[in-house]
Amino acid sequence: MNEPAFLAALRALPLHPGARGLADDCAVIRLGGEALVLTHDMMAEGKHFRADADMADVAWKLVASNLSDLSAKGAEPVGVLLGHTLGRDDARFLQGLHEALAAFGTTILGGDTIAGQGARTFGLTAIGRATHIPVPARSGAKAGDGVWLTGPVGRAMLGFEGHPDHLADFNRPTPRLAEGQALAPYVSAMMDVSDGLLLDAFRLAEASDVTLVLEPRAVPVADAARRDACIRWGDDYELLFTAPPTADLPVKAHRIGTVTARGAAPLVYGDEAFSDPAGLGYSHG
Amino acid sequence: MNEPAFLAALRALPLHPGARGLADDCAVIRLGGEALVLTHDMMAEGKHFRADADMADVAWKLVASNLSDLSAKGAEPVGVLLGHTLGRDDARFLQGLHEALAAFGTTILGGDTIAGQGARTFGLTAIGRATHIPVPARSGAKAGDGVWLTGPVGRAMLGFEGHPDHLADFNRPTPRLAEGQALAPYVSAMMDVSDGLLLDAFRLAEASDVTLVLEPRAVPVADAARRDACIRWGDDYELLFTAPPTADLPVKAHRIGTVTARGAAPLVYGDEAFSDPAGLGYSHG
Repeated sequence: MNEPAFLAALRALPLHPGARGLADDCAVIRLGGEALVLTHDMMAEGKHFRADADMADVAWKLVASNLSDLSAKGAEPVGVLLGHTLGRDDARFLQGLHEALAAFGTTILGGDTIAGQGARTFGLTAIGRATHIPVPARSGAKAGDGVWLTGPVGRAMLGFEGHPDHLADFNRPTPRLAEGQALAPYVSAMMDVSDGLLLDAFRLAEASDVTLVLEPRAVPVADAARRDACIRWGDDYELLFTAPPTADLPVKAHRIGTVTARGAAPLVYGDEAFSDPAGLGYSHG
Repeated sequence: MNEPAFLAALRALPLHPGARGLADDCAVIRLGGEALVLTHDMMAEGKHFRADADMADVAWKLVASNLSDLSAKGAEPVGVLLGHTLGRDDARFLQGLHEALAAFGTTILGGDTIAGQGARTFGLTAIGRATHIPVPARSGAKAGDGVWLTGPVGRAMLGFEGHPDHLADFNRPTPRLAEGQALAPYVSAMMDVSDGLLLDAFRLAEASDVTLVLEPRAVPVADAARRDACIRWGDDYELLFTAPPTADLPVKAHRIGTVTARGAAPLVYGDEAFSDPAGLGYSHG
């Protein structure tokens, strides 16, 4: 099976009500008046990092990518469970893990370690505590809402390509935890932009059954000469959200479009309408 | 690094208070008067299952091994997050996953799927709700307590070897969820026997800073002619626990020994005293 087929089959199994149909960044468990937010992301050698990558960067990014999902739900991190495959430079991995935990103010809850063969894979489960209930979902965008982005996209792309000003944007990205918590009470829908702005905007529109109409010139990009690449590249961890147009947002953000009732296509970008997510961004295989 | 070295280094990182020093079956998060119990276990091809294994059995065992950790804490399953590597027989994997979820009354909360290269690894994070607070730990055994085991050890070993009466004991093990919940209010310490009775008893003694004195003839084994192998083989998922000797236990269990103040060795089995866990059971590499 490929990933979409597997995911479709998984959705047919018994799902927890808080799984949100496996169509959100995180699951939500309500418990004793509180809400826990949970996510699990994996990274594989050859897919998500190169075989010669600094393992400290790999560990950092494993933590950051999961915490980015928490940030999109306005959650504060509680702790992480690590699934680790032993191998080259484990001490570097632990160093990067330590630095990420310290930078984002979280801790180890548990995990498991196995001896690996061949390409290594790592998994991380991040647990957060919701700071606002209801916990923002991808599915809450309403016609008439505005669409915002917390910062420019394309910085991680430039870092991947070796641009000296952007190496950290790719190797040591920062989840928008404070921004997500501040925004949670104001947004109608929110997600992180990890797979490319166009693809993730398409997904938000699909989850909300609306159309997102984006204004190309309003979208902040790291390299204006390569706008088309910037809006398709992932790994930036900016937050994409919708809110009533009059919302008094507590965080500086770029208004990039408007939500309309579902039209012919879920996503309109300038004079292009997209009905198919293929080619919009980075789909992990 | 090997696994013990990695684990020692991981313990030196910032740990959540509920991580229990990474020396218990699960982590515990207190939230709004309730307690969530979390565990993450991995399985790797070539280590935990053969390359030609029925992937439905692999998925079942992935769920069962994690729920067995929850059972040892008296927790009822809330849901699981799956870390899946795509590959051969994914439909069979999903079939076994479905069967295990249905058998143990739990659901999918979320997860991630990646394309794999080489030997496959799977991870599962299981979330449970504690049915009794305080949540049983490995560290609570007290001198004077009795030591109990919920059932015979060695059945999974016979199944692995192809004994027709025990194939399911190896391929489709059953976590002792009901027993763990019933016992939780009565025990001073509890864990599941997943890596072999002797090794796990040694760990419980270490965590509690006591000595466990086991009576060989009292230990129920699946094959009396191979007692020595039965008490070292893993994968049985029986519960090992300690409780005051007068406890009116709600579950039928075998009294197999007594807790004493820490003597020269953490574990005494008949006339053998063990000061070193090496050779006591199955340590996953």
